[in-house]
Amino acid sequence: MRVSICRKGHFNAAHRLYNNNWSKEKNKKVFGICSNENFHGHNYELTVKIYGELDKETGMVFELKRMKDIIKKEVEDVLDHKNLNLDIPYFKNVVPTTENLAIFIWKKLYDAFKIDCKLTVILYETPRNFVEFSG
Amino acid sequence: MRVSICRKGHFNAAHRLYNNNWSKEKNKKVFGICSNENFHGHNYELTVKIYGELDKETGMVFELKRMKDIIKKEVEDVLDHKNLNLDIPYFKNVVPTTENLAIFIWKKLYDAFKIDCKLTVILYETPRNFVEFSG
Amino acid sequence: MRVSICRKGHFNAAHRLYNNNWSKEKNKKVFGICSNENFHGHNYELTVKIYGELDKETGMVFELKRMKDIIKKEVEDVLDHKNLNLDIPYFKNVVPTTENLAIFIWKKLYDAFKIDCKLTVILYETPRNFVEFSG
Amino acid sequence: MRVSICRKGHFNAAHRLYNNNWSKEKNKKVFGICSNENFHGHNYELTVKIYGELDKETGMVFELKRMKDIIKKEVEDVLDHKNLNLDIPYFKNVVPTTENLAIFIWKKLYDAFKIDCKLTVILYETPRNFVEFSG
Amino acid sequence: MRVSICRKGHFNAAHRLYNNNWSKEKNKKVFGICSNENFHGHNYELTVKIYGELDKETGMVFELKRMKDIIKKEVEDVLDHKNLNLDIPYFKNVVPTTENLAIFIWKKLYDAFKIDCKLTVILYETPRNFVEFSG
Amino acid sequence: MRVSICRKGHFNAAHRLYNNNWSKEKNKKVFGICSNENFHGHNYELTVKIYGELDKETGMVFELKRMKDIIKKEVEDVLDHKNLNLDIPYFKNVVPTTENLAIFIWKKLYDAFKIDCKLTVILYETPRNFVEFSG
Repeated sequence: MRVSICRKGHFNAAHRLYNNNWSKEKNKKVFGICSNENFHGHNYELTVKIYGELDKETGMVFELKRMKDIIKKEVEDVLDHKNLNLDIPYFKNVVPTTENLAIFIWKKLYDAFKIDCKLTVILYETPRNFVEFSG
Repeated sequence: MRVSICRKGHFNAAHRLYNNNWSKEKNKKVFGICSNENFHGHNYELTVKIYGELDKETGMVFELKRMKDIIKKEVEDVLDHKNLNLDIPYFKNVVPTTENLAIFIWKKLYDAFKIDCKLTVILYETPRNFVEFSG
Repeated sequence: MRVSICRKGHFNAAHRLYNNNWSKEKNKKVFGICSNENFHGHNYELTVKIYGELDKETGMVFELKRMKDIIKKEVEDVLDHKNLNLDIPYFKNVVPTTENLAIFIWKKLYDAFKIDCKLTVILYETPRNFVEFSG
Repeated sequence: MRVSICRKGHFNAAHRLYNNNWSKEKNKKVFGICSNENFHGHNYELTVKIYGELDKETGMVFELKRMKDIIKKEVEDVLDHKNLNLDIPYFKNVVPTTENLAIFIWKKLYDAFKIDCKLTVILYETPRNFVEFSG
Repeated sequence: MRVSICRKGHFNAAHRLYNNNWSKEKNKKVFGICSNENFHGHNYELTVKIYGELDKETGMVFELKRMKDIIKKEVEDVLDHKNLNLDIPYFKNVVPTTENLAIFIWKKLYDAFKIDCKLTVILYETPRNFVEFSG
Repeated sequence: MRVSICRKGHFNAAHRLYNNNWSKEKNKKVFGICSNENFHGHNYELTVKIYGELDKETGMVFELKRMKDIIKKEVEDVLDHKNLNLDIPYFKNVVPTTENLAIFIWKKLYDAFKIDCKLTVILYETPRNFVEFSG
């Protein structure tokens, strides 16, 4: 019997959208005000969903306390109150769009959870824009 | 690598549920107070989800600014502050339920986005009732 | 000891903003698309706040069940799935703006609650616009 | 043409996580403060999703009023203001985790709706933790 | 220059409404299903508001980190995953209504913050019912 | 007859908390991770409340369309996708805390609205922290 268990998290970060292989003009044309050179920022709201087998004894798919701790260690402690472009090496040559940030988070969590499951990451950049990634 | 990018929109409209092929009594029986002849209305809250291929260069599935502009042009400018039954020809002989309204929006957006993707429309009629349509 | 007890309610209605003493042109100029002749509509979200004396025995300012029932009888049953302009006599010569609707609700509830209190009505016309009235 | 129609519900309940086949110590170790012997409680927020065939005549997948009534009768009237461990026989030997509670609700609703559909139950235990079950 | 700084918190608890000085019948009559003997429970959502003088040097009314820590120590650690009637001595002879719980929280925080301010506690028992207390 | 009319707005910005008159160490001690030198950021959610006299003819306190336009021009166009410390001269020697940002917004709006009213600005820095300022 397979069930999804979901847990929310959040972090605040600064970023700008900028592709180092492009000219300043092309960045401005493609990314608009999102490429402003002094950065802007967001409250990122995260939902992590594990779709896996129900453990009959515990009645759980994954222990919620451990899920919360892993999200804190792998995502919130790494990204909260940071500048994605300057402080996170992964984004040195990867544009920190919500899509790429969701993929980054998905990889870190998939490695950390270490269970047979379908993992989905839902990431709100603003209350009006969000991204979903399931590997 | 496939990711979903989602954007919210909203519009306000009046409507009533009424099937022209039925008697007034049958409409009353099936649709209840939703068939009241002087109309009632809703704040419709819309989420549009494009599940497609990530563009490696931009780090995006679909340019968010263009997505927002298309939703405004195809949905919000057409439906906002309107009476669905009287002002929108499509609903002359189609009952404007949330289901049918989501299908109407899906068709208009699918034609406008012009990309290879799975498109999903989520439409809240009230904060407690909503519909999902994926084609 | 004075405390505020608050309860939410909701109703859906159609309306248009139109002052019968003005020309069609002046209505269009002042109210814009909100004056469209076929009406539009909203999900109104209501918060009712009673600021009054705590009853030491019950530990309550006002019995919550009774508060819910009065809001249902005086507001929801009267306004839900209605056209404010056509179905509610009060708005025959009063423009059904959110301000005037909040005042209408406040008067009905103040008469019905029959207690010595400061009564506040908060009325959301959309998730982005709302009004507060305290008499 | 298949569409999903969704309706929200809610109920409040007390519970504790406790597996009768384990020692008190093991329960404490696995479930932590969630196993406290005097119980704690939650406002459960429920979303029920029916993915089924659109009825061309009504423009609906399932009549919303009936859906609301069935959720009230099968779920809210049964669970609201109850102690899951003591008042609901099903949980005598089943740990009342959010996962098991969602499965319990799913079974009751699937039997009551009696239509050919994919049924999904989404259950929030807190605004930060939730579960999805689709059978 | 006076400004309000607000911080949210939350905790889950079980309770029942019961006045020990009354008969079982009177409790049933006044409190209805809220007096059920096996308890029920809620996710309490708390907002704490300090209205005080702005410190020109820090640009703050009260250090947000300290505010969060005090709310955790005085409220969340004390009430989370507890039974208000059985685990909190204050409620041995005080009915744990939302009003009385807000007053209990207000007193603990007012003593702990130790600053000249107007303190307000807003406490949601459910997303639809809440209480405000300002001393 | 006095009523409050409220309108929401939003903008995204980067900032850091740093008092130029203090040492790096003191900034670190007082502001913690909020003083990180590469900035972080937020989705600021704004509510603007005008408490003023109801105009009998329009049924409004202030024309909502004009209120929206002024908020856009005076706040959103100025602050959205900006770095508060580097792009907004006002914050050259003022720490961009939520308190100071709310005061900045209040002053700009009070000058722009040009009506006799009590103006309140409510500013969410995150969904969990917010500030209120009424002059």
